[in-house]
Amino acid sequence: MTAPKPTPLSGFPELLPAERFVELQVIDQLRATFELHGFAPVETRAVEPLSQLLRKGEIDKEVYLLRRLQADDEAVASSADGPERLANTLGLHFDLTVPFARYVLENAGKLEFPFRRYQIQKVWRGERPQEGRYREFTQADIDVVAKDVLAFHHDVEVARVMAEALSALPLPALRLQVNNRKLIEGFYRGVGAGDVPAVMRVIDKIDKLPAEVIATMLADEAGLTPQQTGACLALADIRSADSSFVDRVGALGISDPLLDEGLSELAEVIDGCAAVDTDRFTVEADLSIARGLDYYTGTVFETRMAGFESLGSICSGGRYDSLASDGRTSYPGVGISLGVTRLLTPLFARKKLTASRSVPSAVLVALPDEQSRRRCGDIAQSLRSRGIATEVSPLPQKYGKQIRFAERRGIPFVWFPASSDADSSGADVSRADGGTPHEVKDIRSGEQVVADPSTWEPPLEDLRPQVVQPGL
Amino acid sequence: MTAPKPTPLSGFPELLPAERFVELQVIDQLRATFELHGFAPVETRAVEPLSQLLRKGEIDKEVYLLRRLQADDEAVASSADGPERLANTLGLHFDLTVPFARYVLENAGKLEFPFRRYQIQKVWRGERPQEGRYREFTQADIDVVAKDVLAFHHDVEVARVMAEALSALPLPALRLQVNNRKLIEGFYRGVGAGDVPAVMRVIDKIDKLPAEVIATMLADEAGLTPQQTGACLALADIRSADSSFVDRVGALGISDPLLDEGLSELAEVIDGCAAVDTDRFTVEADLSIARGLDYYTGTVFETRMAGFESLGSICSGGRYDSLASDGRTSYPGVGISLGVTRLLTPLFARKKLTASRSVPSAVLVALPDEQSRRRCGDIAQSLRSRGIATEVSPLPQKYGKQIRFAERRGIPFVWFPASSDADSSGADVSRADGGTPHEVKDIRSGEQVVADPSTWEPPLEDLRPQVVQPGL
Repeated sequence: MTAPKPTPLSGFPELLPAERFVELQVIDQLRATFELHGFAPVETRAVEPLSQLLRKGEIDKEVYLLRRLQADDEAVASSADGPERLANTLGLHFDLTVPFARYVLENAGKLEFPFRRYQIQKVWRGERPQEGRYREFTQADIDVVAKDVLAFHHDVEVARVMAEALSALPLPALRLQVNNRKLIEGFYRGVGAGDVPAVMRVIDKIDKLPAEVIATMLADEAGLTPQQTGACLALADIRSADSSFVDRVGALGISDPLLDEGLSELAEVIDGCAAVDTDRFTVEADLSIARGLDYYTGTVFETRMAGFESLGSICSGGRYDSLASDGRTSYPGVGISLGVTRLLTPLFARKKLTASRSVPSAVLVALPDEQSRRRCGDIAQSLRSRGIATEVSPLPQKYGKQIRFAERRGIPFVWFPASSDADSSGADVSRADGGTPHEVKDIRSGEQVVADPSTWEPPLEDLRPQVVQPGL
Repeated sequence: MTAPKPTPLSGFPELLPAERFVELQVIDQLRATFELHGFAPVETRAVEPLSQLLRKGEIDKEVYLLRRLQADDEAVASSADGPERLANTLGLHFDLTVPFARYVLENAGKLEFPFRRYQIQKVWRGERPQEGRYREFTQADIDVVAKDVLAFHHDVEVARVMAEALSALPLPALRLQVNNRKLIEGFYRGVGAGDVPAVMRVIDKIDKLPAEVIATMLADEAGLTPQQTGACLALADIRSADSSFVDRVGALGISDPLLDEGLSELAEVIDGCAAVDTDRFTVEADLSIARGLDYYTGTVFETRMAGFESLGSICSGGRYDSLASDGRTSYPGVGISLGVTRLLTPLFARKKLTASRSVPSAVLVALPDEQSRRRCGDIAQSLRSRGIATEVSPLPQKYGKQIRFAERRGIPFVWFPASSDADSSGADVSRADGGTPHEVKDIRSGEQVVADPSTWEPPLEDLRPQVVQPGL
């Protein structure tokens, strides 16, 4: 295929191999944590009928529709959104929640509830691209869904599992912020707000707008008195890494049964995550978190990454009273969604994250001459049989050139085969005949030692490419 | 979301969790083999400009085009295929070769050649669905690509690596069939065929049509004499698991320098794979393999699965003299593509492949009462810290019910916590106070033993869900 040099497509990030190693290691680590907690893997198809995708309502403008190149243009160009078109037109999913809800309904008879699933997949949105906003990106979601009733302890569980997963990742400091819709709704009701959803929508903008603007909006859009506004802003000001927020809310003197229920639920989530708290990862109650546009009914989550606050929340979720429903049975759920691409791409772009090498190979077997290729292949195979990723030199160049070839790829070890007049099994190391024995060189230190291909092992940290965090 | 029960979309297969475990294990095994041989991971975006996708020519009718729901209908409905539309319209990729060729050109300055990459990803084709043909499916590709010249030994390498990868998979018996375009082109030229590509196109249909029909087509479409037809059919009849095919071709008495080159290359590939040959996996020279429609120039591969011959080849590829070119530099490549979905979906459908359980959990910690949830969570956490996937019972039901809950999910072990009057650290096993100690029950055998959560381990084969092959 002949063509001018292609250029990247805005909003569709692609990684170099070293970066892809990091992404795969992150995904592997997430999988491992999710599975340790009993979450089962699910993958859904990339497409849903348009009628499914539009169910949530507000996201419609971001959907990518599909059409076959040879399909009848008329059928698609028709802009009438009739029910038939909605059911027959396919679009790419824009999140993993809508497809999961559909999957649960479709397979309800074959699943055991409460059903824990993780799903790590690409999603697509036709948004205007900017840092942290992509048209194609990977999300990692966990959800627990039940039939009819989902016990509250699953809210604690998903927070704990995602906290464990996030705290194990090679990232700048993260802050998981938890709040509870019952808490804030009960409080707003307790202060006498007439339009509770309006208060929530305004409070949702609190980290984007100055306090005076928020205060004005609470008066204008939610009809609050100055005293009510003061109470709501005081509530939004409360954050704590332990359950001390309960007393601080109490000190505001508002009482409401829903508020009490929310306070006790939030305290349980915060207590449940206490064990995961480290200096690089903190969990806190943050009473300003509202997640205004989403249909959460209890616990809500957001997550900020230190130094990357402009990305907004990189991991969000909460409790839905009805994740899905077929009209007879309702399926409540609680879950969190991590933006893998949103998290990693800015770190790659700022050179804050990469891998120690661009190939999996820990060893390059040097090739003395083309006739030795099979013998060198046997050495490589012997190393691979013990899990050591190995490649053989492509060309029998001078050893200095072959070492530089390894250097350019970041391969830490070069293997020099025993001289070919020796036993050509490739596995011998005894050199009674006076030829040179097998030797392996750490090309970083220059240290070179005699070695046996059937027993030699590199240090554990050199076995696979390592995640490197320059300047973090 | 309220809706009638959704139904599957034809051509877009989805898996239940147990099947997804198997698919993930297959993908993990492929990754491990590819990485052991130094192949680096690449993932490309799902979309390419239509101009890229149509470069290969014959596949255009299968492409899915994308359009944003709110985009100007006029712009898309226009059926004029002007260059601007071709460059601006995005379509989903239908294979991993076209995007990889584009990736190589785009990143040539940042890659080290010869460049080995593997890529395991979804692709989409708007084809009419049938068994083994899907509209969305996963492929696993390996390729080696070089600048200007790619040494022949890489043909041997990709065959060997894919052979190793395939032979490790939990599948019915597989047969990797190798041929060489130089061999057959040289032979057809040697017999005096005037239109060599026409002969190749006919021979490509040899496993779908009776020999008489092929003979007639060779006369009618490729203008061969009966004697030439006889020679070409005799060649296509040759297959061998070793290099004995060389003598059998020699016995046909045709001589041509390209034929000789092809014979020697094919012998090298077959010899190079000899070590991988097992009773479930064979590699053979099959001189009927032509891959008529593809632009291969040397080695060609196909793969058949025993009992699933109707699927056609489930793993195919070969050598391209020019995988990509920017007009100045040409990038020759050799690679093979495995149809993961094509392979697994029919096995799942016929219940020939599944996992031993539908959840990752090896242990269910039984819950004596709701007050014990934290204590039971600590036991679970102690097991998880040693890599044992564990969940805690959702409800403090009678133990018999909790055991049946584990049974339905296939969880092999149920943990009964020490009585709560004991040290509540969850990690004690000494029962000097006369309470009951921690016990763990293998619910398959009924065997129940006293156990310490900080040291107990399940048998290795119970640690993760196992691949099960009923009737294979």
